[in-house]
Amino acid sequence: MTAAAPALLARARKHLFVAVVSDTLDNMGLTGQALAPAIRPLDDALTFLGRARTGMYREMFHVQPGNPYELEIKLIDDLRKGEVAVLACSGNPRIAPWGELLSTASKARGAAACVTDGLVRDIKAIRRMKFPVFAGGIGPLDSKGRGIVAEIDVPVELGGVRVAPGDLVFGDADGVVVIPKAVEAEVLTAALEKVLGEHKTLAALKKGEKLATVFARYGVL
Amino acid sequence: MTAAAPALLARARKHLFVAVVSDTLDNMGLTGQALAPAIRPLDDALTFLGRARTGMYREMFHVQPGNPYELEIKLIDDLRKGEVAVLACSGNPRIAPWGELLSTASKARGAAACVTDGLVRDIKAIRRMKFPVFAGGIGPLDSKGRGIVAEIDVPVELGGVRVAPGDLVFGDADGVVVIPKAVEAEVLTAALEKVLGEHKTLAALKKGEKLATVFARYGVL
Amino acid sequence: MTAAAPALLARARKHLFVAVVSDTLDNMGLTGQALAPAIRPLDDALTFLGRARTGMYREMFHVQPGNPYELEIKLIDDLRKGEVAVLACSGNPRIAPWGELLSTASKARGAAACVTDGLVRDIKAIRRMKFPVFAGGIGPLDSKGRGIVAEIDVPVELGGVRVAPGDLVFGDADGVVVIPKAVEAEVLTAALEKVLGEHKTLAALKKGEKLATVFARYGVL
Amino acid sequence: MTAAAPALLARARKHLFVAVVSDTLDNMGLTGQALAPAIRPLDDALTFLGRARTGMYREMFHVQPGNPYELEIKLIDDLRKGEVAVLACSGNPRIAPWGELLSTASKARGAAACVTDGLVRDIKAIRRMKFPVFAGGIGPLDSKGRGIVAEIDVPVELGGVRVAPGDLVFGDADGVVVIPKAVEAEVLTAALEKVLGEHKTLAALKKGEKLATVFARYGVL
Amino acid sequence: MTAAAPALLARARKHLFVAVVSDTLDNMGLTGQALAPAIRPLDDALTFLGRARTGMYREMFHVQPGNPYELEIKLIDDLRKGEVAVLACSGNPRIAPWGELLSTASKARGAAACVTDGLVRDIKAIRRMKFPVFAGGIGPLDSKGRGIVAEIDVPVELGGVRVAPGDLVFGDADGVVVIPKAVEAEVLTAALEKVLGEHKTLAALKKGEKLATVFARYGVL
Amino acid sequence: MTAAAPALLARARKHLFVAVVSDTLDNMGLTGQALAPAIRPLDDALTFLGRARTGMYREMFHVQPGNPYELEIKLIDDLRKGEVAVLACSGNPRIAPWGELLSTASKARGAAACVTDGLVRDIKAIRRMKFPVFAGGIGPLDSKGRGIVAEIDVPVELGGVRVAPGDLVFGDADGVVVIPKAVEAEVLTAALEKVLGEHKTLAALKKGEKLATVFARYGVL
Repeated sequence: MTAAAPALLARARKHLFVAVVSDTLDNMGLTGQALAPAIRPLDDALTFLGRARTGMYREMFHVQPGNPYELEIKLIDDLRKGEVAVLACSGNPRIAPWGELLSTASKARGAAACVTDGLVRDIKAIRRMKFPVFAGGIGPLDSKGRGIVAEIDVPVELGGVRVAPGDLVFGDADGVVVIPKAVEAEVLTAALEKVLGEHKTLAALKKGEKLATVFARYGVL
Repeated sequence: MTAAAPALLARARKHLFVAVVSDTLDNMGLTGQALAPAIRPLDDALTFLGRARTGMYREMFHVQPGNPYELEIKLIDDLRKGEVAVLACSGNPRIAPWGELLSTASKARGAAACVTDGLVRDIKAIRRMKFPVFAGGIGPLDSKGRGIVAEIDVPVELGGVRVAPGDLVFGDADGVVVIPKAVEAEVLTAALEKVLGEHKTLAALKKGEKLATVFARYGVL
Repeated sequence: MTAAAPALLARARKHLFVAVVSDTLDNMGLTGQALAPAIRPLDDALTFLGRARTGMYREMFHVQPGNPYELEIKLIDDLRKGEVAVLACSGNPRIAPWGELLSTASKARGAAACVTDGLVRDIKAIRRMKFPVFAGGIGPLDSKGRGIVAEIDVPVELGGVRVAPGDLVFGDADGVVVIPKAVEAEVLTAALEKVLGEHKTLAALKKGEKLATVFARYGVL
Repeated sequence: MTAAAPALLARARKHLFVAVVSDTLDNMGLTGQALAPAIRPLDDALTFLGRARTGMYREMFHVQPGNPYELEIKLIDDLRKGEVAVLACSGNPRIAPWGELLSTASKARGAAACVTDGLVRDIKAIRRMKFPVFAGGIGPLDSKGRGIVAEIDVPVELGGVRVAPGDLVFGDADGVVVIPKAVEAEVLTAALEKVLGEHKTLAALKKGEKLATVFARYGVL
Repeated sequence: MTAAAPALLARARKHLFVAVVSDTLDNMGLTGQALAPAIRPLDDALTFLGRARTGMYREMFHVQPGNPYELEIKLIDDLRKGEVAVLACSGNPRIAPWGELLSTASKARGAAACVTDGLVRDIKAIRRMKFPVFAGGIGPLDSKGRGIVAEIDVPVELGGVRVAPGDLVFGDADGVVVIPKAVEAEVLTAALEKVLGEHKTLAALKKGEKLATVFARYGVL
Repeated sequence: MTAAAPALLARARKHLFVAVVSDTLDNMGLTGQALAPAIRPLDDALTFLGRARTGMYREMFHVQPGNPYELEIKLIDDLRKGEVAVLACSGNPRIAPWGELLSTASKARGAAACVTDGLVRDIKAIRRMKFPVFAGGIGPLDSKGRGIVAEIDVPVELGGVRVAPGDLVFGDADGVVVIPKAVEAEVLTAALEKVLGEHKTLAALKKGEKLATVFARYGVL
């Protein structure tokens, strides 16, 4: 019921991967924590584990007077080290809320990543700067006149998963899972233990042992 | 209202990217010019800017007598330097109108690229020859008995965007935009100016300035 | 009507590619043998040709008592050299039936590949071990409590194509085709001949000859 | 270029139907004015022709403090005789912005209809009161905590069509078309003329004349 | 292997319904003969059994010179008593190939029905004239400038099912099945027998007997 | 936390409707209890409230030896008065698990309804017998060789909602909601109170009062 201590988070970043955390969440009955497979990383080599800062986009069909980026700017300028910008767009394929400028600003603030079900643009520049972005697609369309951040720091949903502000979000090449705040220490601790079992299983299989034998011995698959 | 001069096209090819052109089109009220994100490049490193030569496929469910590639061959054999084969398939996932042979023939003619909402095949060979192909998917299915070019050099739609013969088509890793002929000089000129503003914004953000400060100063995001 | 001899299979593995086999199947009237383009390889560089061993998953929404992997383990432990695990999931985007452990066990047995319309996980590890996996997507979700193998070694469908146990399955960067057992020798033999024609066509096009001329001469496109 | 006079609107309500107006819009080059077929009337017997009053919904995933219906109430309470509530929900299948209470309030104000790409509920009561509602589906889910009107009296899109405040919206059993304000008099006048031609065509076909003969004579199909 | 005699067709029209024919086709291994459920009748009370006359539509995005209805008119004017116009539109939701005029002309010729995966318009008039139309949706959009018949009297596919010219097509409130010409007599004869078994089963169930008992006795469910 | 008493269920059947129960569930934070709008009643006039008896279908692509209806028969033969057959098919559009025979057998046992995300057939007969069936579509395809009940009396999901055996399921023309067993007495009691408030709101709106006034007075919309 307590938040994960910095030391636990550090061990998690070093040893864990998304699939083992997903299995651990499953074992605790939390079976709806993995984002849909349409949300993919720009760069399979990058991973992140950080706390969600959320923004909820809404669709629009005209250019409003005023600053169309007001809440988006507020959210990004306020990011702290290790935080993850989570931008929910209702799966809108018409807007790219994220690009090189926001990546640059976020990285300068020490942010961990961006996760969105909208599109991302400037992908070559973002890949060069090694900032992790997980998005619902790639496209050049700016949000101005198409969508706007309507609320920040509220619960949102993207990829079929609810994300509350402060939830841990974990991403690697296999996808993204959301770890609810109330159980994060338990989840990370259990996942670290599970990793050990998988190493033994893997070693046995590499030697050519049968799955049936190995599963009977370690109970892990 | 005039077509872009060769010098302007040359500067565009050197300095512009798809996202900034998309923003410029938006600013002129042309908000429906970016192809849907399902149409992706085979190779993110390749870009192109050229004039559309269009072909419209139709679906079929039998093998007709006669040459099934007649109009397709006519279109490709007639491609001139810098032209882009734009093949609209109504998003049909059953045919790959493009492959190694058409890439080879097109490249030999100096064509700039192929854009299709159908599938592409022979992708390893096409990547090796560095010919830009943007397609709706990858698959081995030839068009014979499944689809046929019904018309060439007529207006078509693909990825939700209308393309008229002669329109400029511009593609890079972020996607594809279509620049209507009537406004191409204005669009390219304005986009070249916008690029300068983005460089300043980016430099300021890299130094760690807040988005709010930078956006207030340059008005670009 | 006879199964392909080992020598024919060896020549096929060396000289054939999926697109030419797809064309050959088309020419024999077998037009529904290519899996839908949503099923993609984890690694475009890997190819395989092997015989199908099938498993049919069913969806579930609770954790059953007993071993949830019983039939899956049985199938994998029984794979012989050159066989392909074909796991049909009804396109379920909620489960990843395949991952590092099954890849390791299958590779140890000499299996040729895995093809599934479900998800795959542990993709970095699988890419490192160069085991060919063609899947409907990438995601971390284990099958336990979400899906279970209901039958093995029965006819299944995935990606819109029927696969019977023992059918040849052939995959490369362009996709996957299924060659029904009854015609496999005819298909492979005809495809090997067709490859020669394509080489001549390609050489002529590279020299800059018109498609119309080349197609008239060789009849191949 | 002028708005339709009341007498023209009255004749349109009496003699026109949606298909003939759609054809007339096509003839003027306005080919994108019919809402997608997923938007259906609750009662095929009801028709309407009125001016759009627009509301744009946004999705949300929590219950905000304050009145969740503020702008929706403002829009409905301000409806004038003959106006049509046009509620754009980005095709959201999670909310029913319309139901018996809003139908009752709208009818009391003399409103002509409701058109939405969201859901509608209380359908038996609405059918009994003969108030025309065209919706994207039927479902019991209130908007509270799921969606909220973010803007009213702005351009919106629903069913793939842009609707500006004040545009004429016309619906019957065949669907809904939007007539842009700038051309409404021309469209209605031309459609009234076209109706006559169709009557003659129909009478000839009923007598058993060939389509080819009748089309050659009247040029209408 | 012979076509059904008129007397058999008459008995089929009197006693059969689509579900029992679908079961009979299944029993003969023909499991892909029922059109997808998105294709629905305008009027659940109407049924038909007739021979297919096929037309294949193609999509277009401009108005061609010439008569846009040429082949469509040719097909309809040539319909004979009991024939069914089968119009395949690749599931295009942008066109309504069928409406009141074609229904009137077809009925005057004694045609049995229209089946299309496109849209239908003028639905109130068509319902009044009791002409059976089974369509992929309802909408006002004429085909001119959107689609055109590219071929008639060729094999087509709609709703996932192949239809060859002359195939029997059978529709009622439960949907549409296609009976290939080569097996039609066998199918209809077997289905007529199966109807008797179902009557007995139904009578027993109405008396309150258990399904298990009744299924054991009659083997029909 | 207690199950609803028979008297409460009787009052609920008399006075409640699905929309008000959906609102009540929302107010208790249970926002995911309404089935997706694709699941529609065969007859809008019929309603039901009963306890779920669940069956989980799995897809298959061959005809198994043995009785393909074994578990389905067991489930239906065991239905008690007021129970609802809930058949989850993973949204499979290839099978109609429900038809006239099962409706007849279920009605004979006093069952309240059938709810499925699969198809239903024999719809005219079922409408005649006034047995409530809510289905994901209409089609003639029997389940034999396409799907089979894999488990009964286990938790399932359909239309995006989890249904546990014994949960109350409530359906009318607006859709279907699932009331979890643990809260059913609270939900029904609160919904009965809410109905009163809606009557007052409706009466005021019918008199022409503004929504703003009425909402301020009763707090119900």
